Amino acid sequence: MTTTDRSRRSLAAHGASPVSPTRGPRRGGRVGEVRWDAESFWGARILTNAQATFDHCIAWMDRLGWLENFDRVARGDVTVDRPGWQFSDSEVYKLLEGMAWELARCPDDALQATYEALVGRVEAAQDADGYVGTAFGHAGLPERYSDMSMGHELYNMGHLIQAGVARLGTFGEDRLTEVARRAADHICREFAEGSRETLCGHPEIEAALAELGRVTGQPRYIEQARLFVERRGRGTLPVRPLLAADYFQDDVPVREAKALRGHAVRALYLSAGAVDVAVETEDAELLEVLQSQWVHTVERRTYITGGMGSRHQDEGFGEDWELPPDRAYCETCAGVASVMFAWRLYLATGQARHIDLIERTLFNVIATAQGADGRSFFYANPLQLRTAPEEAVSAEVNMRAEGGARAPWFDVSCCPTNVARTLASLETYACAVKGDVVSLLLYGAGTATIDVDGDPLELRLDTRYPDDGTITVTVVEAPSRPITLRLRVPQWAAGATGAEPGGEPHPVEAGWWDVRRDFAPGDRVELVLPIEPRLSWPDPRIDAVRGTVAVERGPLVLCLESHDAPDGAGLDGLQIDGAAMLQSHGDGAVVHATRIGDPEVPVGRVPFSGSLSPSSESSAPMSVPLIPYHRWAQREPGTMRVFIPVAHPSDGRSMPIT
Amino acid sequence: MTTTDRSRRSLAAHGASPVSPTRGPRRGGRVGEVRWDAESFWGARILTNAQATFDHCIAWMDRLGWLENFDRVARGDVTVDRPGWQFSDSEVYKLLEGMAWELARCPDDALQATYEALVGRVEAAQDADGYVGTAFGHAGLPERYSDMSMGHELYNMGHLIQAGVARLGTFGEDRLTEVARRAADHICREFAEGSRETLCGHPEIEAALAELGRVTGQPRYIEQARLFVERRGRGTLPVRPLLAADYFQDDVPVREAKALRGHAVRALYLSAGAVDVAVETEDAELLEVLQSQWVHTVERRTYITGGMGSRHQDEGFGEDWELPPDRAYCETCAGVASVMFAWRLYLATGQARHIDLIERTLFNVIATAQGADGRSFFYANPLQLRTAPEEAVSAEVNMRAEGGARAPWFDVSCCPTNVARTLASLETYACAVKGDVVSLLLYGAGTATIDVDGDPLELRLDTRYPDDGTITVTVVEAPSRPITLRLRVPQWAAGATGAEPGGEPHPVEAGWWDVRRDFAPGDRVELVLPIEPRLSWPDPRIDAVRGTVAVERGPLVLCLESHDAPDGAGLDGLQIDGAAMLQSHGDGAVVHATRIGDPEVPVGRVPFSGSLSPSSESSAPMSVPLIPYHRWAQREPGTMRVFIPVAHPSDGRSMPIT
Repeated sequence: MTTTDRSRRSLAAHGASPVSPTRGPRRGGRVGEVRWDAESFWGARILTNAQATFDHCIAWMDRLGWLENFDRVARGDVTVDRPGWQFSDSEVYKLLEGMAWELARCPDDALQATYEALVGRVEAAQDADGYVGTAFGHAGLPERYSDMSMGHELYNMGHLIQAGVARLGTFGEDRLTEVARRAADHICREFAEGSRETLCGHPEIEAALAELGRVTGQPRYIEQARLFVERRGRGTLPVRPLLAADYFQDDVPVREAKALRGHAVRALYLSAGAVDVAVETEDAELLEVLQSQWVHTVERRTYITGGMGSRHQDEGFGEDWELPPDRAYCETCAGVASVMFAWRLYLATGQARHIDLIERTLFNVIATAQGADGRSFFYANPLQLRTAPEEAVSAEVNMRAEGGARAPWFDVSCCPTNVARTLASLETYACAVKGDVVSLLLYGAGTATIDVDGDPLELRLDTRYPDDGTITVTVVEAPSRPITLRLRVPQWAAGATGAEPGGEPHPVEAGWWDVRRDFAPGDRVELVLPIEPRLSWPDPRIDAVRGTVAVERGPLVLCLESHDAPDGAGLDGLQIDGAAMLQSHGDGAVVHATRIGDPEVPVGRVPFSGSLSPSSESSAPMSVPLIPYHRWAQREPGTMRVFIPVAHPSDGRSMPIT
Repeated sequence: MTTTDRSRRSLAAHGASPVSPTRGPRRGGRVGEVRWDAESFWGARILTNAQATFDHCIAWMDRLGWLENFDRVARGDVTVDRPGWQFSDSEVYKLLEGMAWELARCPDDALQATYEALVGRVEAAQDADGYVGTAFGHAGLPERYSDMSMGHELYNMGHLIQAGVARLGTFGEDRLTEVARRAADHICREFAEGSRETLCGHPEIEAALAELGRVTGQPRYIEQARLFVERRGRGTLPVRPLLAADYFQDDVPVREAKALRGHAVRALYLSAGAVDVAVETEDAELLEVLQSQWVHTVERRTYITGGMGSRHQDEGFGEDWELPPDRAYCETCAGVASVMFAWRLYLATGQARHIDLIERTLFNVIATAQGADGRSFFYANPLQLRTAPEEAVSAEVNMRAEGGARAPWFDVSCCPTNVARTLASLETYACAVKGDVVSLLLYGAGTATIDVDGDPLELRLDTRYPDDGTITVTVVEAPSRPITLRLRVPQWAAGATGAEPGGEPHPVEAGWWDVRRDFAPGDRVELVLPIEPRLSWPDPRIDAVRGTVAVERGPLVLCLESHDAPDGAGLDGLQIDGAAMLQSHGDGAVVHATRIGDPEVPVGRVPFSGSLSPSSESSAPMSVPLIPYHRWAQREPGTMRVFIPVAHPSDGRSMPIT
């Protein structure tokens, strides 16, 4: 047995997963445990990711010179006007991480060759002491670590380390993992106590080092992650003009903050890494603070889509209840980062609400952000498009993905590769194991072969979820002892029913539905989640959507596109009847609506007045179809809204009293 | 008679005003024609401006080294790390402009000495060829005009020229006017056709050169302004990462654009200069386009306060109907710039709506932006503060004037000096003359001595406006021939009455009320504007304030501060009764309101749900006082809103049908 073989085997037990705590009773799914069918909602997207997105991203990075930056460093001819932002290296690493997951999920020679070629270029650019970076630290570039606020050097290497972790856990040592270890060792030397006692403006290194510590069993990486978490919030980072310390979360120490704030992706990556540190150091106080920050943020700073980040300015969180639908930023990467944070809290606490948010975010941010072709992306994910572009903008020109058109790439192109790595590892979020309790968390048709303390549990999963709410789990093989199958019942699924093997359906509460028994092949467990469309009323403290309502169907947020206004008159003035029944319609719904005319604004006057123009009579009622939000912007340019004005709120309030 | 005396006399006829068209029938007021009493609304602020604001601004610029930048250039030891942004010179020039107006309004030896000392420092920094600038073009600095997108060199010199224009018109030639002329001549040489055919990323030079052309009678300055206007919108400016061409209005030619867009101050300064060019070149088509852009912008992109700029991101205009109250940017300088644009359109067209907007903006943006002490300022002027700071932030620390506290100065400190120059020249906006028609535009107690084709019209103006709506005009001296006194009746003043000398009050329509006669000393004209508080309903297309209403009283927008919630429970859940009567209360109003409790959000769930918590019973009705918006944030930290949720809209729509 070679060293590589040994490390591969020894790591397989806890490493084949993006997050592998060494403390705590629960582990997440491993690559290969749940496999979704290619026809399922997520299975199809995972396939497209492998077949289209990887090559697409490489082609763009090649075209833009972001790959050649590594070759230039290796050749010694990199210059300060190198192409790409200072964080462009990270896109290569996120893609390598995605490839590592995909190669384990579904080995492929061509992908393997692509992966190895990329790794070779990165490896060639690594300095002897482990530093890797194409924007600093070489002749012709600024000095290493000369701009901790915005240089992104540790952010970049953090993503390199995460790629290495993925490879270590799914394969074992290779050239990439060596590069990643050397980079991590370099960072531990440079940023130890008594050395450079500073931190990176963009968190990421924290979660990366913590996970490397877990997978390698080396506590020094976790200790370095802990140092970075504890250093934060003490005003260490030089503040830039017009960028305050909260942008970097360097305003308040992590364990003293009440809510997530500042740049959303930074805040969420930091929180994810901080959970890792709390778990590995058994710091219950820190874990509780992070949980409390998550609760506050979800309750008051999160969109119905799960999107986070209310402001374009600073790509940041807003204040409590600041959730404008039109200017929602909801950066795709913040969706990825929110999944990372919530997943770690779930593993630590076992609460269903974390998975509820993950599901909400996956179906309504991640599935929206990537086009069906796997080659087009949204960067921001607003919940309303008020003005349609006059004509469709070619995706190649629309490099900021604005006006309701997905773009193939961005100037700041963090999102495509972030979605790619998330999809490639998404199946690992589908289940978790704690002792003899096997939890099914995300639903899709497919198979599961789950390791229950050394015994395999093999399941067939049948469902058309989210189009339909029936989930059937058939046991193919089970340990010959009692185990618990624990199924998640989403919080929205009032009226859900479950049927044990051979039993009749009975009501199950939101949260967890446990079926414990000595399972035999052929045993069937059936969960039925009611996915009839439902009205979702915003909390009245959310000023931006007062007097409106949203429609959800199962885990999907629905939206109204101007194409679907039956009278062809767009969305202005359309008001839905808050008291009328909703009907399912394909994967969407049909609502009843009327239209009022727009009032006349006196010429050249501000649009606020003491009276309404008499032109505002209501139209006859009409039926209006809504579609899943993740399918918006697939037609010619139009307008869109998730929150729809209500014609007759039951008592003049924003919500009906039940 | 010296040369200076001669030029002073010849200029006095058309120059003692910020805008002095040489074409068209109408002129604005000149310094000294209307003088408001020191106790009047604006008179008090103009006095504070002279007594406090000038010195305050100089002290800050001295402390920060912005003044010494000129000395460094003169000494030849300026460096690239000079203090201040690249546009800090302009603050000195705006202050010089303000001082020039104030010295004409009310000569003062100490102010004169301060003015001359500042002028000397600027003069010493001027290059032999006329260029002035402390951030480019000298040893140790980047080359002249090496960053047309963001360098602000012409913007700075534009403000220098405007200061020179103010001095030329009110005094005649002096050292400042010589400096300004040399700078203008330099610019005309450098940016002529066939030379540098480019433009400045921040408009300002256009209006400045046009006015210099007017005051000096030199058409070449106007021609250069015309070139700058026509060059714009053709993609000439190098685009910066994350700053699109519309930020600079370099995306669409001025005469092809439909609405103002991009950075609000840039868009408005450009429009002001373009009106000047249109008027002086008798370009009716350009004037009509600009008028149409103004109409579109006022009807769909302007706040009830007159504030413009819906986005913090890029300090920009939003799309049509994008008018969030909490994230309203409404930069103070955009208020100043909007007054500049509207005033030029008024002079060109004589329409009351332009003055209506100016009045709205003055009372609700400018009067809000400067604190009563003349030493504290808002940069942004939001219409809602949702979260109060936990404790009052010292103004010295709060350099961005956030959280509802005015700051003494800003990192980007364009607003204080812009308010200073506006207040110092504000009386010139109070009247206009066209032939024998004398229009009174803005109301305040004071005196007027207006030149009507060489004959003086002397008036006494008595009013407590805006606290009271009665305006009495008493003739002290009048030309011995029939003239027309034309009084503006604001569009909100439904039910206004007017009484001619010796006559009974009779209804007057919004717009203009003309009184034509052969006036005799002692003749009294009385206009009564009803200033009872009134509800103002937002256009239903403004999503951000659906289900709310604002209260106005005369020209004042009112607001509700949390301090005034009678039950001490803040503003969440307060809903006003849209059908109940409003009452005046001091300079504000009293409304009837109830409070509903906040719904309980299930722990860790997004705040959107199918039901409302039963805790949301309405409270007993209570009376709640509103204060003028311009007086907000004068107490300890609290929350504030202009748009207040409505408990019982008459039929479930956003507005009642009249």
